[in-house]
Amino acid sequence: MNKKPIIIDCDPGYDDALALVLALGNDTLDIRAITTVAGNVPLARTYKNAVRICSYFGKEIRIGCGAENPLIRERDTGGEKVHSPSGLGGVNIPEDVEMPEKVNAIELIRSVLEESEDKVTLLPIGPLTNIALFLSQYPELKEKIEEIVIMGGAAREGNCTASAEFNIYADAESARMVFESGVPIVMAGLDVTNKFQILPETFASYRKMGKTGIFVAEVLERYYDFYQTLGDKFNGPAIHDMIPIAYVIDPTSCEGKAYHVDVECRGEFTYGRTVVDFGEMNPDKNAIVLFESDQKRIFEMFEESIEALNQE
Amino acid sequence: MNKKPIIIDCDPGYDDALALVLALGNDTLDIRAITTVAGNVPLARTYKNAVRICSYFGKEIRIGCGAENPLIRERDTGGEKVHSPSGLGGVNIPEDVEMPEKVNAIELIRSVLEESEDKVTLLPIGPLTNIALFLSQYPELKEKIEEIVIMGGAAREGNCTASAEFNIYADAESARMVFESGVPIVMAGLDVTNKFQILPETFASYRKMGKTGIFVAEVLERYYDFYQTLGDKFNGPAIHDMIPIAYVIDPTSCEGKAYHVDVECRGEFTYGRTVVDFGEMNPDKNAIVLFESDQKRIFEMFEESIEALNQE
Amino acid sequence: MNKKPIIIDCDPGYDDALALVLALGNDTLDIRAITTVAGNVPLARTYKNAVRICSYFGKEIRIGCGAENPLIRERDTGGEKVHSPSGLGGVNIPEDVEMPEKVNAIELIRSVLEESEDKVTLLPIGPLTNIALFLSQYPELKEKIEEIVIMGGAAREGNCTASAEFNIYADAESARMVFESGVPIVMAGLDVTNKFQILPETFASYRKMGKTGIFVAEVLERYYDFYQTLGDKFNGPAIHDMIPIAYVIDPTSCEGKAYHVDVECRGEFTYGRTVVDFGEMNPDKNAIVLFESDQKRIFEMFEESIEALNQE
Amino acid sequence: MNKKPIIIDCDPGYDDALALVLALGNDTLDIRAITTVAGNVPLARTYKNAVRICSYFGKEIRIGCGAENPLIRERDTGGEKVHSPSGLGGVNIPEDVEMPEKVNAIELIRSVLEESEDKVTLLPIGPLTNIALFLSQYPELKEKIEEIVIMGGAAREGNCTASAEFNIYADAESARMVFESGVPIVMAGLDVTNKFQILPETFASYRKMGKTGIFVAEVLERYYDFYQTLGDKFNGPAIHDMIPIAYVIDPTSCEGKAYHVDVECRGEFTYGRTVVDFGEMNPDKNAIVLFESDQKRIFEMFEESIEALNQE
Repeated sequence: MNKKPIIIDCDPGYDDALALVLALGNDTLDIRAITTVAGNVPLARTYKNAVRICSYFGKEIRIGCGAENPLIRERDTGGEKVHSPSGLGGVNIPEDVEMPEKVNAIELIRSVLEESEDKVTLLPIGPLTNIALFLSQYPELKEKIEEIVIMGGAAREGNCTASAEFNIYADAESARMVFESGVPIVMAGLDVTNKFQILPETFASYRKMGKTGIFVAEVLERYYDFYQTLGDKFNGPAIHDMIPIAYVIDPTSCEGKAYHVDVECRGEFTYGRTVVDFGEMNPDKNAIVLFESDQKRIFEMFEESIEALNQE
Repeated sequence: MNKKPIIIDCDPGYDDALALVLALGNDTLDIRAITTVAGNVPLARTYKNAVRICSYFGKEIRIGCGAENPLIRERDTGGEKVHSPSGLGGVNIPEDVEMPEKVNAIELIRSVLEESEDKVTLLPIGPLTNIALFLSQYPELKEKIEEIVIMGGAAREGNCTASAEFNIYADAESARMVFESGVPIVMAGLDVTNKFQILPETFASYRKMGKTGIFVAEVLERYYDFYQTLGDKFNGPAIHDMIPIAYVIDPTSCEGKAYHVDVECRGEFTYGRTVVDFGEMNPDKNAIVLFESDQKRIFEMFEESIEALNQE
Repeated sequence: MNKKPIIIDCDPGYDDALALVLALGNDTLDIRAITTVAGNVPLARTYKNAVRICSYFGKEIRIGCGAENPLIRERDTGGEKVHSPSGLGGVNIPEDVEMPEKVNAIELIRSVLEESEDKVTLLPIGPLTNIALFLSQYPELKEKIEEIVIMGGAAREGNCTASAEFNIYADAESARMVFESGVPIVMAGLDVTNKFQILPETFASYRKMGKTGIFVAEVLERYYDFYQTLGDKFNGPAIHDMIPIAYVIDPTSCEGKAYHVDVECRGEFTYGRTVVDFGEMNPDKNAIVLFESDQKRIFEMFEESIEALNQE
Repeated sequence: MNKKPIIIDCDPGYDDALALVLALGNDTLDIRAITTVAGNVPLARTYKNAVRICSYFGKEIRIGCGAENPLIRERDTGGEKVHSPSGLGGVNIPEDVEMPEKVNAIELIRSVLEESEDKVTLLPIGPLTNIALFLSQYPELKEKIEEIVIMGGAAREGNCTASAEFNIYADAESARMVFESGVPIVMAGLDVTNKFQILPETFASYRKMGKTGIFVAEVLERYYDFYQTLGDKFNGPAIHDMIPIAYVIDPTSCEGKAYHVDVECRGEFTYGRTVVDFGEMNPDKNAIVLFESDQKRIFEMFEESIEALNQE
C-alpha cells in the first residue's frame, strides 16, 4: 500500500505535540514536511518545539519556519495561558537540540508539492497564515493538493469568543482565503474536537508505555493544568489537533457532512466565526464539517503510534 | 387573579394572526394595546390586518401604527413570499373595515405605560423598530416594563441567512438597542419556534371549531403553501409567533436558560445574528433564551382561545 | 416680512451658547422651540443650560428634553474637556433657574410641525439623535420640514478622529438616518466652521457690550482655554455652531455646493466620516456642503444680536 | 556615483508603460528586477506587457510573475475600461516576444534583496498584493528595503469611489499590510498624480522623438481615449505612475509631508481609503504623503529617458 503523503502545519503547543506523536508513529502516513506558524506560542517556540519533538523521536523530517504574525491582526497571545509560554512547559525533552538550516515554510510546501507525483494532503492544525500565503503565492499548485484537513472553526459555539475558535480567530483573513481557495476542505472544528477528551484517570496508563508514553503523560498533565481552570465543562483536556490527523489516517474514524462555510472577518462580535450553512441555502459546499469521531478507534491508533515510536 | 397587562407589537402575517388568536382568546392576558410595524409585509398592511383581526373577533383594543421602515436598512421584502403580499392572502375576513383614528405606536406604548400602575410586558413578534424607538425616546419608562418577550433570533442556525433569523435580520440595529437596553429579555428564537409545527393532517380539525377555527384553518393552509416549497425540513408550518404568547400566558410552558446575547450589526456573513454566549464568558446575562416548549400544553391553550373567541 | 420658523436642536456647550445668542437676538427668526440632546455634556446639563440661557435673556421659548444617549454607541465624553463638565463652566449666569415642565423633544418637534402652516427649518447643532428619532417616528411630517441645517461633519479632515467630526462621530447611525432621509440637508461642517475663529484680542471688545457682551466674553474666554491646548493650529476658538445659524438668517453669508454625502458607520478608521462625493459619481445630491463664510457679515449679525438682546 | 538599486512592481497598463520608459532610460537607477501583479488588467497581460516593453527597449531585466488575485477580494476589472483589455491596446510593439522562464515575483524580490549589499527601493505602481505577500513571508528582509515608494491612495478624494484610489481599493488588505509593515513609505497618491497631466496638444511633439517617442505618443493617445470620457475634469491624461519613479530619481522633484496613514478595510463607503492623519493626532508618522511635483523637472527627466532609450 502506498503511504499517504502529507504536510503538517503546526504550532506546538501541547495538543500539537500529541497530534505529532499520532502522526509520527503511524506507518500509513508519509510526512513530507512539517511547517510551523505562530499560534499557541510565538514562531520561535513553535519552530523549535517541532524540531525538538522530531529530534526526540529520531525522525528526520524537513521542518519549515513560517509566518511569525497573522496577515493583518496582531498576534493573539491567549494561547500562552493554555500551552505555557514555551508551548511545552514542564515536558522533559531536551531543549538543547541541533537546529537545522532555516527553511521558509512556504517554499518548503512549494518544493514538496512540485516534487511529488501524487497529490499531497495539507494538515494545518494552527492558524492558517502559512497556508493562505502559500495559496496566494502559488495558486497553480492547488491542483497538487489532495485536500486541506484543518483543525479549526466551530459550527456551533466558539472557545475564544462566543462565536469563534482560536485558530480561526487568530487569523480570520487567512482562514477566509483558505476556505475560499477552491481546494477541498475538511474542517475538524470544536464540534468534534471538544468531545475528544482524554480523562485524567487514564494519564497514568500512558506513563507505563515507555519513552513515548512518558512524553504523552507529561504533555497531558501539563495541558490538563489549564483545563482544570475551566470548571466542570470538560472531564479532561480536549486533544483538538489529533482529530484531523486521525481523519487523514482513516477517514471512517470521523463523521461529517458537506456544507458551505464562510469565514467572518468584519463582525464586531463574530470575527473569526466559521459560518456553516446548515440550511443549505448555498449550493457551493466547500467544506466537509466533522461532528463525530470514533473515539475508541482513535485511541487504538494513538496507542499503536506510541508503541511504534518506542521502537525507533 | 389579576390579568397580566401586555402590549403586542406585531406585523401580521400568518403566524402573527394565530398568535393574536391565542392572545385575544386568553382570559389571563390584559391586552392594553396592539402596535404594528413593517415586517412580514409593509406597515400599511400590518396595521390594517391588525385592525381587521380585532374587528373580526369583536375586540376593541387600541391599535398603534408604528415604523414603516427599519432604522437604517431598507425594508427586506422577503416576508411577502412567506405571508403573501397582503399578509393574510386567501384568508376570508372582511377587507373593508372601519379604520380607527391613527395613533402613533410609540406614543401609544408610552401612554399605556404611563397609565399603568403595574408593570407591563412587551411582546414584540416582528422587527424591533418600534421597541427600539420607544426605548430611545422614553428611557425613563423602562422601569414600567416587566420584560420584553421577543419572537426573534436564533442561538443556532438562522432562516434568513445561515446566521440570522428574519425579525432580527430585518432591523439588527433596533434589535441591538433592545438587547442592550437593560430591560429583562426573553428570546423565543428559532431554536424553540422551529420545532413548534402544526401538522397539515390536523388542519381539518380546526375547520370544525366554529368561526375562529375556520379562520385558523385558512391561515394554516395558506401559510403551509410556503412551507411546502422548503422540501422535507418541516412537517408543517412553524408557528413562531405563538411561542412568546404562550410563554407570557404560562412561563412554565417553555424551557430556557439565561445567557448574554449580543446582536451583530457589522458582519459580512453574520449581520443580524443573535450571538448567544453558551460558554458563559460574559457574566451579564441579559436574556433568557428559550429552547424547548411544552407543545401539548400550548395546543390546549390554543384550543381554549379558539373556543373563547367563538363565544364573543 | 415673515419671520423664518425654526427649531434649534442643541447641546450647550460654549459654541452652542454663542449660536443661541446669535439666534435669540435676530429678528428674522421665529424660534418655535429649542430641543436638547446629549452631546458636548450629558443631557441633564444641555437641557438645563438651554433653560438657563433663555431665562437669562428673558426669552419664553418651549424647550424640549431629548435623547440622553446615542442610538447604539455609548456616549462619547470627550466634549467635557472642551466645554467643561457643566457645559458652561466659568460663565456667570444663574444656575438656580425655574425649570419648566419637562417636554419630550421628539413630541415637541412633532407638535411644532403639526401646528405650523409654513415649513419649519430644523437647526441641529449637536449629535443628530433627536432628529433621527423624530424622522423615524414621524416620516409623514418630513414634508413640513423646509430643510435641516446641520453643524456637523467634515468633507476634508475630522477633529475627533482623522476621519470624523465630533457631532457625527458621537452618533453616526443617527447622522446616517438624517442624511438618507430625503429631507434637504445643508452641512456646515469643519470645512467652513474651523475657519470661523474669534481672535482672543477681540474678546475685550465684547465685554463692553452690556450684559450680553459680558456673557459672550465669558463664554469666549472659557472656550479659548481649550483651544490654547491645541498649539498653533488655531488663532482663536472656532465658533462652529454659529455658522448654520448665520446660514439660516442669510444663506448668502455662506458658500457651498451640492454633493452626495454618505455617513460611514462601519469603518475601523472612518466611523462617523461624512463621505462627500467630490467626483460627483452619484447623481443623488442629498446635501449642500458649505466651504466658505462671509465672516464680516456674520460678525455684523452677531453684534446686532448682542445689541438686540441687551434691549430685552 | 552609485546607481540606486530598485525593484519596480507594476501592472502595465498605459501609465505604467510611461513610468517604465522614465525608469528604463534613466542612468541613475539600477533596476534589479521588474515584478508584475494583476491590477489594471489580468496578470497574464501585465506580465507579458512587462516582457514586451523590456524587449522592445532591449533591456535584459529579470521579470517576476506575481499574484493573479488580490488577497481576499475578487479582482476589480474596472481598469480594463481605462487601459484596454490587453493593457496596451493600440500600441504598436510586438506581441510575439520570447517569454523568459517564469520566475515567482516574491522569490525574485527575495533573491534581489538577499544578493544586494545595499538597501533596495521598492517601487510598486499597481495593487500591493506582491509586496504584502513578500513582507509577510520574509519579514527578516525588511531591513534590506530602503523605502517603498507607492503609486496609490488619496489623502483627499478617490477616483474609484469617493473615498478610494484604484490601486488601494483593488486590494486594501494588502495595502494595509504594507502601510503597517514598519518599512518607510512614500505615498504618491492622487493628490499629486492627478495634477501631473500631459496635454494632448503636446502628444505630437513626442511622435518626433524617434522610436521611443512614437511609443510614448501611441500610449498617450490611447490613454487619452479614456480621459475624454471624463468630461472637463482633466486637461489631459494623468500619468500617475511616473510620479513615484520621478521621486526615486530625484526626491527634490516632489513635495510632501510625513503623516500617519491608515488603510480602511471594513468601511461600507470607505473601503480602501488611505486615512491621512492631517491633524497629527498619531505620532507614528509611517508615510511621507506627496502633494506637489516639479512638473518641469519631471518632463525634462522624461525627455532625457526617451533620448537615452533611442540610443540602445
